[in-house]
Amino acid sequence: VSPDAVPLDRVLVAGAGLMGTSVALALTARGCSVHLLDRDPQALRLAVDLGAGVDRPPTGDPDLVVVSTPPATIGVVTKHLQSIYLHSSFTDLSSVKAYVQQEIEALAVDSVRFVGGHPLAGRERSGPAGARADLFEGRPWVLTPGPATGAETLARARALVRACGAQPVLMDPVRHDRAVALASHLPQIMASATAAQLGPDTSDAAAIAGQGLRDVTRIAASDPKLWAEIIAANAPFVLDVLDAVAADLDRIRAELREATQRSVDTTTKSESDESTSSQRGKLPDLRLVRALIVRGNDGRRTLPGKHGAAPAAFVAVPVVVPDRPGELARLFAASGAAGVNIEDVSIEHSPGQPVGLVELYVQPAVAAGLTRSLTDAGWSVHG
Amino acid sequence: VSPDAVPLDRVLVAGAGLMGTSVALALTARGCSVHLLDRDPQALRLAVDLGAGVDRPPTGDPDLVVVSTPPATIGVVTKHLQSIYLHSSFTDLSSVKAYVQQEIEALAVDSVRFVGGHPLAGRERSGPAGARADLFEGRPWVLTPGPATGAETLARARALVRACGAQPVLMDPVRHDRAVALASHLPQIMASATAAQLGPDTSDAAAIAGQGLRDVTRIAASDPKLWAEIIAANAPFVLDVLDAVAADLDRIRAELREATQRSVDTTTKSESDESTSSQRGKLPDLRLVRALIVRGNDGRRTLPGKHGAAPAAFVAVPVVVPDRPGELARLFAASGAAGVNIEDVSIEHSPGQPVGLVELYVQPAVAAGLTRSLTDAGWSVHG
Repeated sequence: VSPDAVPLDRVLVAGAGLMGTSVALALTARGCSVHLLDRDPQALRLAVDLGAGVDRPPTGDPDLVVVSTPPATIGVVTKHLQSIYLHSSFTDLSSVKAYVQQEIEALAVDSVRFVGGHPLAGRERSGPAGARADLFEGRPWVLTPGPATGAETLARARALVRACGAQPVLMDPVRHDRAVALASHLPQIMASATAAQLGPDTSDAAAIAGQGLRDVTRIAASDPKLWAEIIAANAPFVLDVLDAVAADLDRIRAELREATQRSVDTTTKSESDESTSSQRGKLPDLRLVRALIVRGNDGRRTLPGKHGAAPAAFVAVPVVVPDRPGELARLFAASGAAGVNIEDVSIEHSPGQPVGLVELYVQPAVAAGLTRSLTDAGWSVHG
Repeated sequence: VSPDAVPLDRVLVAGAGLMGTSVALALTARGCSVHLLDRDPQALRLAVDLGAGVDRPPTGDPDLVVVSTPPATIGVVTKHLQSIYLHSSFTDLSSVKAYVQQEIEALAVDSVRFVGGHPLAGRERSGPAGARADLFEGRPWVLTPGPATGAETLARARALVRACGAQPVLMDPVRHDRAVALASHLPQIMASATAAQLGPDTSDAAAIAGQGLRDVTRIAASDPKLWAEIIAANAPFVLDVLDAVAADLDRIRAELREATQRSVDTTTKSESDESTSSQRGKLPDLRLVRALIVRGNDGRRTLPGKHGAAPAAFVAVPVVVPDRPGELARLFAASGAAGVNIEDVSIEHSPGQPVGLVELYVQPAVAAGLTRSLTDAGWSVHG
């Protein structure tokens, strides 16, 4: 069976939450006949009203059943629906996979017809009201075949991933869970732990909050019940990464405590003390804080850029460009004439500014040559 | 002296980094004559090329000198320039204020002519290449008058804030520093501590990284030297908030450790043990994790929305709207006819979807009435 040739004519989505309804919207837009189930009649009605599908069960076996319920119920829901739909394949959308796989092997009627799935997409809001047909567009979608998973089931799950515009990534359930502890569960806890320090007494902080605090705490708006369950299902790996973070924080807290103590000592020394004036204004060098931020710089660079390439692979050649029609075209023509392939480009320009800064991202080996060629051609290059 | 009537004809910006160059661009766009200084000739040349000002010192006293150097040098730079420009006012752009105020009082020629300033804006990149004339547009800009700060100096600093399109906020230096530890320095450390867990061995996590990890770690790309210095200058308040975070993390780590231990106990029990099958699949209820996420929900809600109003003050009335021209206008007309003021609106719609979900944000007191009126008029309201 060629993976992308498998048709998905009829799909049952069990659970009309954010993820399930988004899958249903994407499939409906592709012409697939989608049936929706949810024990909450209000959620189901909203999903149907949004055009995600019909709220009748299918009359025959659907090609695929997408179990989009919380982790703890996936095993029992799959067991129940496998006993009704004897020829359907099954997948889920939950963000923990080893636990779900264990549940399926322990409970499900037929683990040949199940493959775990985890689309790496989401929003800080939950429920069908936040659903979007394009939620998965261009996102990775991990599929975690178990030892028994059949080829047809995997092919149908891949067809689902493609129909939602996502990229299938095959991974072992345990490897997935270790990765997701770091990529998803840790950021959730860090965002919540940061936002948890804000409250009625911190209105000064809220008044001056910038984009940094907003970005760090955006996902702190997530659903507590769902997330406590996700973290419970991946407790050992989450604990590992949290222990590592706590060790880092302990080290810099010790350094800060020492710096604070030293500054108090200096302040309380008598004014006549020689050392006071020489110490005045001297900030302690927080080596461990700096080292943590450097490691953060490096870690951040491991995340792929928008085209999936690591930004560190390219070098930026900054060029000042007048804000006149045709100048960008002239710049690209000049780069082309120099025989250099532009990998990416970023343009900094704000209203009222007579010039903009264009950064041309190129392979490191050609950056010096491009700088020379553009400079020779009269461009203002800041290499 | 009326604060907004003070002219800023000539300004000296000492330090052509991200912030200084952005201020210079904003002032130049307003027709102010801007002079730039930087000990790094490359940075200075780029700032000048970007149209931020001229690299000559002013021939007379500028109205205002903006000292945009790192915290540890603000005192000495101000002292030096106050001895040259005897009638100029001075302000800075650094994110710590009590330390800078102490430095000024200890070192500067004239603390009457100084007022601390902190524009709450920034980017994860540094240097003049990232500068933008609109960086401060609509952002708060804290001014922290000291005991000696004169009225004319404060008026000129307010004129600077207004010229950059920002909102002046007056605050005591110590109160500012406590707020900024929470609103800015804590998120920086949390972002860095999260990103620091990523490295060459975590390519699985990078491959599946979603928007959550990206948002939490965006500011992890910040300058280590500058940030270690900022945190050093605010060590006691940063330590306070980090201690609170560490206590929260310790509690949930203990809970996770217990959950992991319990699950190992269950797994290693003999298959014949009665308790095994009843325990199977049962996820531990992580009360403390859930409580932290709930506190994070509440904390996140204290941050003002885009119009400066707390989003919690309004209630969303979701309405399903067909994707046809004129439908939104009809909906707003119907809301107007019901006598309800729409405070904010969000529209969820993705390509290929025949309907969209419009959420009308209104005062809680009128939500039920609006729901009734719209339902009576034939709209599909999901209240």
